[in-house]
Amino acid sequence: MIIVLRQGATDREIRLIEEKIKSHGLSAHTSRGTERTIIGAIGDERQVDAEAFEGLEYVEKVLRILKPYKLVSRDFKKEDTVIEVRGQRIGGGAVALFAGPCSVEGREMMVEIAGLVASSGANFLRGGAFKPRTSPYAFQGLGEEGLKYLADAREATGLPVATELMDPRDIDLVARYADIIQIGARNMQNFRLLTEVGKLGKPVILKRGLSATIVEWLMSAEYIASEGNHQIILCERGIRTYEPATRNTFDVSAIPVVKSLSHLPVIADPSHAAGKMGLVEPLSAAAIAAGTDGLMIEVHNHPEAALSDGPQSLRPEVFREMVSRLSRISSAVGKKLGSA
Amino acid sequence: MIIVLRQGATDREIRLIEEKIKSHGLSAHTSRGTERTIIGAIGDERQVDAEAFEGLEYVEKVLRILKPYKLVSRDFKKEDTVIEVRGQRIGGGAVALFAGPCSVEGREMMVEIAGLVASSGANFLRGGAFKPRTSPYAFQGLGEEGLKYLADAREATGLPVATELMDPRDIDLVARYADIIQIGARNMQNFRLLTEVGKLGKPVILKRGLSATIVEWLMSAEYIASEGNHQIILCERGIRTYEPATRNTFDVSAIPVVKSLSHLPVIADPSHAAGKMGLVEPLSAAAIAAGTDGLMIEVHNHPEAALSDGPQSLRPEVFREMVSRLSRISSAVGKKLGSA
Amino acid sequence: MIIVLRQGATDREIRLIEEKIKSHGLSAHTSRGTERTIIGAIGDERQVDAEAFEGLEYVEKVLRILKPYKLVSRDFKKEDTVIEVRGQRIGGGAVALFAGPCSVEGREMMVEIAGLVASSGANFLRGGAFKPRTSPYAFQGLGEEGLKYLADAREATGLPVATELMDPRDIDLVARYADIIQIGARNMQNFRLLTEVGKLGKPVILKRGLSATIVEWLMSAEYIASEGNHQIILCERGIRTYEPATRNTFDVSAIPVVKSLSHLPVIADPSHAAGKMGLVEPLSAAAIAAGTDGLMIEVHNHPEAALSDGPQSLRPEVFREMVSRLSRISSAVGKKLGSA
Amino acid sequence: MIIVLRQGATDREIRLIEEKIKSHGLSAHTSRGTERTIIGAIGDERQVDAEAFEGLEYVEKVLRILKPYKLVSRDFKKEDTVIEVRGQRIGGGAVALFAGPCSVEGREMMVEIAGLVASSGANFLRGGAFKPRTSPYAFQGLGEEGLKYLADAREATGLPVATELMDPRDIDLVARYADIIQIGARNMQNFRLLTEVGKLGKPVILKRGLSATIVEWLMSAEYIASEGNHQIILCERGIRTYEPATRNTFDVSAIPVVKSLSHLPVIADPSHAAGKMGLVEPLSAAAIAAGTDGLMIEVHNHPEAALSDGPQSLRPEVFREMVSRLSRISSAVGKKLGSA
Repeated sequence: MIIVLRQGATDREIRLIEEKIKSHGLSAHTSRGTERTIIGAIGDERQVDAEAFEGLEYVEKVLRILKPYKLVSRDFKKEDTVIEVRGQRIGGGAVALFAGPCSVEGREMMVEIAGLVASSGANFLRGGAFKPRTSPYAFQGLGEEGLKYLADAREATGLPVATELMDPRDIDLVARYADIIQIGARNMQNFRLLTEVGKLGKPVILKRGLSATIVEWLMSAEYIASEGNHQIILCERGIRTYEPATRNTFDVSAIPVVKSLSHLPVIADPSHAAGKMGLVEPLSAAAIAAGTDGLMIEVHNHPEAALSDGPQSLRPEVFREMVSRLSRISSAVGKKLGSA
Repeated sequence: MIIVLRQGATDREIRLIEEKIKSHGLSAHTSRGTERTIIGAIGDERQVDAEAFEGLEYVEKVLRILKPYKLVSRDFKKEDTVIEVRGQRIGGGAVALFAGPCSVEGREMMVEIAGLVASSGANFLRGGAFKPRTSPYAFQGLGEEGLKYLADAREATGLPVATELMDPRDIDLVARYADIIQIGARNMQNFRLLTEVGKLGKPVILKRGLSATIVEWLMSAEYIASEGNHQIILCERGIRTYEPATRNTFDVSAIPVVKSLSHLPVIADPSHAAGKMGLVEPLSAAAIAAGTDGLMIEVHNHPEAALSDGPQSLRPEVFREMVSRLSRISSAVGKKLGSA
Repeated sequence: MIIVLRQGATDREIRLIEEKIKSHGLSAHTSRGTERTIIGAIGDERQVDAEAFEGLEYVEKVLRILKPYKLVSRDFKKEDTVIEVRGQRIGGGAVALFAGPCSVEGREMMVEIAGLVASSGANFLRGGAFKPRTSPYAFQGLGEEGLKYLADAREATGLPVATELMDPRDIDLVARYADIIQIGARNMQNFRLLTEVGKLGKPVILKRGLSATIVEWLMSAEYIASEGNHQIILCERGIRTYEPATRNTFDVSAIPVVKSLSHLPVIADPSHAAGKMGLVEPLSAAAIAAGTDGLMIEVHNHPEAALSDGPQSLRPEVFREMVSRLSRISSAVGKKLGSA
Repeated sequence: MIIVLRQGATDREIRLIEEKIKSHGLSAHTSRGTERTIIGAIGDERQVDAEAFEGLEYVEKVLRILKPYKLVSRDFKKEDTVIEVRGQRIGGGAVALFAGPCSVEGREMMVEIAGLVASSGANFLRGGAFKPRTSPYAFQGLGEEGLKYLADAREATGLPVATELMDPRDIDLVARYADIIQIGARNMQNFRLLTEVGKLGKPVILKRGLSATIVEWLMSAEYIASEGNHQIILCERGIRTYEPATRNTFDVSAIPVVKSLSHLPVIADPSHAAGKMGLVEPLSAAAIAAGTDGLMIEVHNHPEAALSDGPQSLRPEVFREMVSRLSRISSAVGKKLGSA
């Protein structure tokens, strides 16, 4: 860590910084220039908070040299992490295809959609039983009933099931039914929830927070990994910007950036990023071209009647045609899409 | 709700929208213009999700007429909500002054700081026992031990205590010691936590999320209110923008905007907004001038040695002098600051 | 335009709004609901400024029904605009490939790079003679000398040349040498410059402003079109967000969104969006998959020594290999890339 | 400047960086750590572009030690710059009060408003003759005619006049009538315009760009100063964020931050920041409390009929009452407001 002091910092202030560095078990190397004094903190800076220095009045700025995350970094593990669930893989040269409704609304609809997406090439099912909703008056999901229908859909198709966990008190319940636990964007920094799924023996999809930086996202993955669970799938779902034309701005650069920083697989959720049916295909195509390890697509048999997020859901026949076009792009980058 | 269709929307599409509106118990009023068809949904649109329409391919945009929140809105209740805790008030013509360390680090420091801030004019204590930290390797707070020290500080000074709750499983524990429960920015959309504090009989400070819109913030307050707890204090603490000069951008406009939309008191946390000691005073002054109902200030007796957020904390003697200057601004707008 | 009044708006206020609407030549249709009064402005609302209403104290919000731009909209012209320059086309089913150095640094380097990119598949040359630089102390471009070298490079390769115009006083000079005039991101709302290039008979590349919305970008294109020049090429180059991992956030969604709103071709500049060599290829691939009509790539024969933006420039041999890989993605979406 | 290389950077890459540093006239100091190699560039780094390094594939990050601006920095000149125009001062312990209409719409209105604001305490006049408008179809200002009316208003009141310059070709015309030249937010990085006003002998108001960082804003001021004109007034007018409740987010922190970094005076434009009448007073109050050197307020005698930005304009009688309340806050911070 390198700490740049303001012009005119006093000897006492320099000494205070040096002592603070040493109290963290690092050594301090001070270099007094003509315009600025710079202090280097040598040692494992991960134990030190940059904020612990940068708010001080006589500090101008602080540069971390090392990354604040470790277990999830590419420096720590060179090879790509590949996650296998019921014979299906995420990472390692294929594009996993998760599909299903936003919310599980009933047994019949769930099993029907599952059959349709499976026959179109999806190799993972998705569906929400617990739904984080902005309004307390909106449909909050079917709860355990929804989890059962997901399990029924898995039985009918053989595909592994991913679903969201919102509350640490539900972890046993959700883990009983799900193959993959999803942590939603609004819970990306719900650190207690991260710690709990870190103790599980199941893969976790960690969605990027609404305005999380890539470093914060990887730090949240580090929370999970630091508890022992290394089966983490990162999911880009768009970030909040000033642009109103899309619900979120899909940050396609995040895919190659994360893959260079981390060994974990990265998938993309174009349905939530765009919030519009018509953008799901171009964003899916862009994600594949940029190197995604998977796609998560909302499919509903009656989008107009969906209880949540209907309008960004594709009809099964539209999904089928889209998968066939996306497979060509996937082939062009040397990867297989879903079970195609 | 007004739904504008894309040019060339078909009769079938218009009918689908009309049916969807009716299925929510509202009536549809369609007006076909030369360039666009517009459909009005008449009735209590709070039960309808704008997103349920705006993602549809043939919908161009959707305008809500009514606000999506109700109980917390100024339309619902004209008079300002005033919250009273152990004889101290928030709202109603005074500027409440919360002060204390970021984290409770020990009994002695907590009691010492409490005494110092009380004698300088603070009328509420703050301090974290459970700390949400970006890094799993950072100090996470003293837990129950910290809560006990907060209670000791209350005993010593008579001031009510506010502290953060991070996990629904800790609610009984935290409520046993705290007078006011704080929900942190990262948990603003932890809907399960909101629901739980909504069932409590204690005031709640709801911090604005890192990149929450004012409407989303009020919707989170609505979650709490809809469970029966109307003692909600909103806290502006800066939002995430592209500007790197400050940790967050303190959105001073949010104070008058929220006060026009809602009857709830709004306080400001300039320490977290700025992330720098030197900005705490000008931002506090700005908040008072803009109409804040309270301030939340971090004070530490040894900022250089603080276990978290030290550098944005003020030394007790600096705090004392600041309070005296801020009191003059407070008088200029006709309000009393703290116990001054 | 639909104007929603605040609860309790008075009859006088309603009348003021109605008169203001009529003074713009539109008719007012007022509907008084139980919770809100809504006033519709019927007629050509393009002549009315939404801001002229939304700042009024008794107005809650304003919804435009029609788009504020006309000539550049897809409603106005259904078919894609195709621009032809010296036998090369932009739009209409191909991916145009612009390549060259950020700044023209000398005759020899310009001609050499031009030859190399032409032989690798580029069908347009790019290079800056006038450079907008954040610092007054940085290299500002070779000026007319640079324009001459660009013309030499065109002569040597036969490829049309695009270069930036920064000042209305330089328009004749730049137009004498360039085939396509580029308006940079920082000048997207330099309305005088837009008006001037609107009077030219040459194609214009209009880069998206650093934090321009898509609507503002199209409004700037409307400035050019309203002067009579309809040969406009829009260029997405990344937007400003809170994320520090990339210089800008490449908004890949803007490509399909703009193509649905406008008939104009849209190209992408992944070099400036990312600011990093290693991201140029994945972002180019993403742009092609999402439907771009062209790419603008910085190529330099000695990136380490470049006078500006060197490090995001590709070496000619890297460019050549990238073009060959991107051609496969381009084929997968049924388009030809450059002259390949 | 400190350059951190990626793990595994080769000797050749280290040498390339060292040579690039030396080619800029600085010396390179390389330190090879166990995890990362760090290279310090010692000397006047202002001549070196950080971007010239940070895009290189083997570079992880770059930290500037020195500020990229010089003449406008507080390091260069410790004392506050005070600007005097026709006996009125900006900076140095007072709050200058600029008031007037957004656009000059006629002689009579301009002179009338000028008289009213002067009698209420304004000590500078403002009014636009050349208006940057998002739409080519909107009112673009009266041009020279407007400048004449401004001069008439000055004659009638004795107050100095500030007005906007949009085009380098108009500089002589505008300078003939105006006492202070304003550069609008959209032209903050119109570097040719900055260079031209840098050659003038008149004070310049430089508005912050829509999404300019504070450093970029100061770099634009440096453009003006580097041409010899040091009479620069910075104007905070809100930045673009994701929050839709206000037209822009007024960045009140920018006032103390800029005053710590630069010796130049900083004024605030709450009318444009908020876009709403009702927010002008609280934001003005906040700016004064945070240390602003001036306010710029839109006042119109018939806001409903204004040709531009009417609704954020105050009526003269509202302005008068606001000035009287703001004077109390100004007194509380020890400053005089306007001519009060």
